[in-house]
Amino acid sequence: MDGRMRAVIENVQPQVDAGRFAIKRTLGDLVRVEADAFTDGHDSVRCMLRYRCADQTEWSEVEMQPLGNDRWQGSFEVTALGRYRYTVVAWADRYLTWRRELERRDDPADILLALKVGADLLTDVARRAAGEDRARLEAAARRLAASRDADAGRTLALDTELDRVAMRFPDRRFESHFDRELEVIVDPVLARFGAWYELFPRSTSREPGRHGTLQDCEAMLPYVAKMGFDVLYLPPIHPIGRERRKGPNNVLVAQAQDPGSPWAIGASEGGHCAIHPALGTLEDFARLMKLAKEQGIAIALDIAFQCAPDHPYVAEHPEWFRFRPDGTVQYAENPPKKYQDIYPFDFETDDWAALHAELIRVVEFWIGKGVRLFRVDNPHTKPFALWEQMIGRVKAEHPEVIFLSEAFTRPKVMHRLAKVGFGQSYTYFTWRNTKAQLQEYFTELCHGPGREYFRPNVWPNTPDILPEYLQIGGRAAFMTRVTLAATLSASYGIYGPAFELGEHRPREIGSEEYLDSEKYQQRQWDLERADSLAPFIARLNRIRREQPALQRDWGLEFLAIDNEQMLAFAKTDAGHDAVVVVVNLDPYNAHSGWLEMPLERFGLTPDAPYRMQDLLGGGSFLWQGPRNYVRLDPHGVVAHVFVVQRHVRTEKEFDYFL
Amino acid sequence: MDGRMRAVIENVQPQVDAGRFAIKRTLGDLVRVEADAFTDGHDSVRCMLRYRCADQTEWSEVEMQPLGNDRWQGSFEVTALGRYRYTVVAWADRYLTWRRELERRDDPADILLALKVGADLLTDVARRAAGEDRARLEAAARRLAASRDADAGRTLALDTELDRVAMRFPDRRFESHFDRELEVIVDPVLARFGAWYELFPRSTSREPGRHGTLQDCEAMLPYVAKMGFDVLYLPPIHPIGRERRKGPNNVLVAQAQDPGSPWAIGASEGGHCAIHPALGTLEDFARLMKLAKEQGIAIALDIAFQCAPDHPYVAEHPEWFRFRPDGTVQYAENPPKKYQDIYPFDFETDDWAALHAELIRVVEFWIGKGVRLFRVDNPHTKPFALWEQMIGRVKAEHPEVIFLSEAFTRPKVMHRLAKVGFGQSYTYFTWRNTKAQLQEYFTELCHGPGREYFRPNVWPNTPDILPEYLQIGGRAAFMTRVTLAATLSASYGIYGPAFELGEHRPREIGSEEYLDSEKYQQRQWDLERADSLAPFIARLNRIRREQPALQRDWGLEFLAIDNEQMLAFAKTDAGHDAVVVVVNLDPYNAHSGWLEMPLERFGLTPDAPYRMQDLLGGGSFLWQGPRNYVRLDPHGVVAHVFVVQRHVRTEKEFDYFL
Repeated sequence: MDGRMRAVIENVQPQVDAGRFAIKRTLGDLVRVEADAFTDGHDSVRCMLRYRCADQTEWSEVEMQPLGNDRWQGSFEVTALGRYRYTVVAWADRYLTWRRELERRDDPADILLALKVGADLLTDVARRAAGEDRARLEAAARRLAASRDADAGRTLALDTELDRVAMRFPDRRFESHFDRELEVIVDPVLARFGAWYELFPRSTSREPGRHGTLQDCEAMLPYVAKMGFDVLYLPPIHPIGRERRKGPNNVLVAQAQDPGSPWAIGASEGGHCAIHPALGTLEDFARLMKLAKEQGIAIALDIAFQCAPDHPYVAEHPEWFRFRPDGTVQYAENPPKKYQDIYPFDFETDDWAALHAELIRVVEFWIGKGVRLFRVDNPHTKPFALWEQMIGRVKAEHPEVIFLSEAFTRPKVMHRLAKVGFGQSYTYFTWRNTKAQLQEYFTELCHGPGREYFRPNVWPNTPDILPEYLQIGGRAAFMTRVTLAATLSASYGIYGPAFELGEHRPREIGSEEYLDSEKYQQRQWDLERADSLAPFIARLNRIRREQPALQRDWGLEFLAIDNEQMLAFAKTDAGHDAVVVVVNLDPYNAHSGWLEMPLERFGLTPDAPYRMQDLLGGGSFLWQGPRNYVRLDPHGVVAHVFVVQRHVRTEKEFDYFL
Repeated sequence: MDGRMRAVIENVQPQVDAGRFAIKRTLGDLVRVEADAFTDGHDSVRCMLRYRCADQTEWSEVEMQPLGNDRWQGSFEVTALGRYRYTVVAWADRYLTWRRELERRDDPADILLALKVGADLLTDVARRAAGEDRARLEAAARRLAASRDADAGRTLALDTELDRVAMRFPDRRFESHFDRELEVIVDPVLARFGAWYELFPRSTSREPGRHGTLQDCEAMLPYVAKMGFDVLYLPPIHPIGRERRKGPNNVLVAQAQDPGSPWAIGASEGGHCAIHPALGTLEDFARLMKLAKEQGIAIALDIAFQCAPDHPYVAEHPEWFRFRPDGTVQYAENPPKKYQDIYPFDFETDDWAALHAELIRVVEFWIGKGVRLFRVDNPHTKPFALWEQMIGRVKAEHPEVIFLSEAFTRPKVMHRLAKVGFGQSYTYFTWRNTKAQLQEYFTELCHGPGREYFRPNVWPNTPDILPEYLQIGGRAAFMTRVTLAATLSASYGIYGPAFELGEHRPREIGSEEYLDSEKYQQRQWDLERADSLAPFIARLNRIRREQPALQRDWGLEFLAIDNEQMLAFAKTDAGHDAVVVVVNLDPYNAHSGWLEMPLERFGLTPDAPYRMQDLLGGGSFLWQGPRNYVRLDPHGVVAHVFVVQRHVRTEKEFDYFL
């Protein structure tokens, strides 16, 4: 290394595991980068943020600005999907050092000597310039060299226009490079912001007892679109195994008419690339995709890398399964859940490379059918290396594809899956009910170091999980949970129609399994029920689409409210209205409290009133000062979703108070 | 990468800048390492800490123990000076997984099948074993295979002795390696624990007006040894430039008899490898080294890479200096200090490689003369790359050498110097006086991430810095500051005899410069003065040598005491007595407070009395319970340095209270 490379660059942020993994952003985001940069001695440093789209060879550069304490900041916008790289360079700048020292000199002899030094420096700078710039720099150098008057010469030397030109041609021969290039994965905005709706296609038939089809699903699209969902996620649509098929409520022996679990994939009709004959054909699927798209809905498929005992893989590739001495395969488990109808792959098979290749082929098959969203079942029971390879390969060709990790497991495992490529992740939200739990968990999600790669997608329920709070809290509990999900997190989802119809009966007391779960049988839902939460959810989703502050996670800030049953938070996004949400967490009782508004954060002053327009419950409130009273009754609307409006007094507004 | 390498290793700690720099330890220390390690699914993981001395090729291994939440811990002892490397390996262990699952099985048919699986597994394990172990494993495999009784078979399979053998022969074909090897630099204990004493050799003459010599320094050794110092540090002992020599109190024009600043190095008599003729010869130096060693004192030399204008380098290597258009060199500065008598090197010279080589040669010259300790002057005004290269090269040959960084500058610059190799660093202690400042700063030093590489050496004064607190606080201020230095930090130093003789006159009000500073003139000191703090300091150093808890920094914990002018802290080191220090920070007034003792931390119980033996002020106190009263008067002893002794009731003890 050249001993003249004196600048040091350290602690470039964001950075995940020393650059082993990429950070994640979405299209149009600004990537803010900070670094420590300094040199020995007292010389001035210049510091540049370099970035490029992975397929460009040339770096773009933006000058970083000092934050104090040798910390620097710069940012760049990501305008293309895929991968970007960024790093930092810095150097001790002799011209800048000279200029800064000249500024503080006061002895005329010192100044005259410094002007001569500056003349040499500018002559050197001029050599790197051309045309008019060069001429200007050379002229300045000559005038400095000839200067006989300290004051006049210094004024000339410190001319800001001259400085502007000189700064464009620095001596970077000895610049230092940060020792790593870091990566950003740029995903579509849907990876950051979207509402997901899960339903079982086989339950979409309008005729009692008939197995629903993909064509029945088409009929559901307007219903889903009207509620404002962006994604329709379908559990596995493949043939279901007959061997060891389960019956209703997870019983181990199925009757002839029982449809079995969609996650017990594969039968004589085919495996992961086939469609269950009772649901329809690939053509039906293509038409569903097309119609969904026309209504602004993206279809997400389920990727569950596991097999029913009669999946074709088992006969064709017995080497992909671990047979025991008695010729059986130990069924899959995700303790305490047991999947007696499912064989896991043996990922330690000697034939692992072929197995990986085949599983990647499955995903690529569905990408070929237009699918861009995949919800991956229990990814934590398959090797991280498989996901890293698969997602890396898929996204190299199709950077718009998003993989959602359905891993409900230990924190470090969930984070690793996000690091190796999953664009979204299921979370512990499903079990976080109290104010303290919600504050702690969302502070971690939105402000912890994991936010650089772990994007939460929060679900109040799933076909596997009917949380206790929903079992016992009545309609208010459903409203509270979906409001929390839709406003705390930019991405959320519900499993419906069970959710909007308030399905709350567990298989037994103490269980989180649904009674008569759709996992094991088809159900019929009365979507027209008067107590359906569909209009409520539609309103939430409309608010989300109208308020940019709800479309990002990082702008979350919890607010103080003096009632343990009330949760209050603000969401902000620079350049857009702030949203303030207050939720009553108690599904049984009305609660009130005094909310502390951080006025300055909202650009408000203590002496002027401001309007809190409730987008959810309707109506507006005229507030003033930081402390304001809020009351919420679970028998009415469980939450306020306010937009904060700086008050402009009009005649019209008196309508609200008369 | 083999897809069967399923274990993941992340976040290995300690780790400095992703392994770019080594952590530091001293001989005999335990290096505690933690890592996240896990695999997909539910398999059991085994995790090994690997380490080796840099000159060994074989790794040693120690099995890491789970701490919960996928975190593991292991440790190793460093028993040789120099560099060690460490890293972590882990794998999903099929045998261990099988054993753990067998433990929780209860269905007899399941168990019998598991025994057959186990038989195959143990047969495989046996293949990696030899001799008796192999025979034992094979026999167990046969018995499991033949087992017809679930209970008996399981008891056999779970036999702990069998397990102990089987665990020694794991299947590690698919083990994962952490992606970096990390380094430890092992320094001598003196890098962690030592008391330094700085004096100007030219002020050691006993005859008024005569220039002190290295032989006069010899006569000082018993004085320094009696005070209990481990290191005698000498400012530069080289010829001093005559050109632009400074006079007393930093005046720019010296008189003929003025000796000049020792840091203005080099004159016709020689440069950095020469000894000032007025001080003596290389032979005198050799004798001083030898005599010091005999009295348990190590000599530290000053490395100041800079030149007086008449240093031989200036004529021989004008290319190492940056000449201005008027033929002069801009003198050195460390703002606001100006060194008009000193030329800095131009480290951006095209001849930088030769300059670096020469400076390294200087250090190697003094190492050749037996010097092992170097206090480096203003290292932050020379390139980091020079230090990294120099210290790396020196310590490869002489791992016992310690470089102390005298950089009083911005925090990140000070930390970088420590990272590139300095074994100890000056600190901001010199200006940290209040309880809040001391608590915050020492918490950072002893518990912040920088402690892995930044070892503080704290100085209440230096020839450059007479802090305001010492100027105005009288004798109590000197006692307080040296007590804090000696007990808060395992390494500390004073500049004497100015310190123990209470020299407190600044050059002018508002200045931190000493009046009649030894930097510019020789002084005579009356070491026999009745008010000398030498006995007090001797007592402190004796306490330090007797109490292992004071010999390490990391065992520091501040204790609550309800008086802002009183600072209380404990120092602990496993296996040794705890020390509790209480200091009155107010040099004018007596203060009292209630001290909170964390009894459990000291192995004490609320119901039994314990003895607090004051090693500094003398006497013992019998305390009970967590809250105890302390009073300190600056006109007596400013601090208690207690050793905490679990109380054993003896007749003798009543002496203390009668």
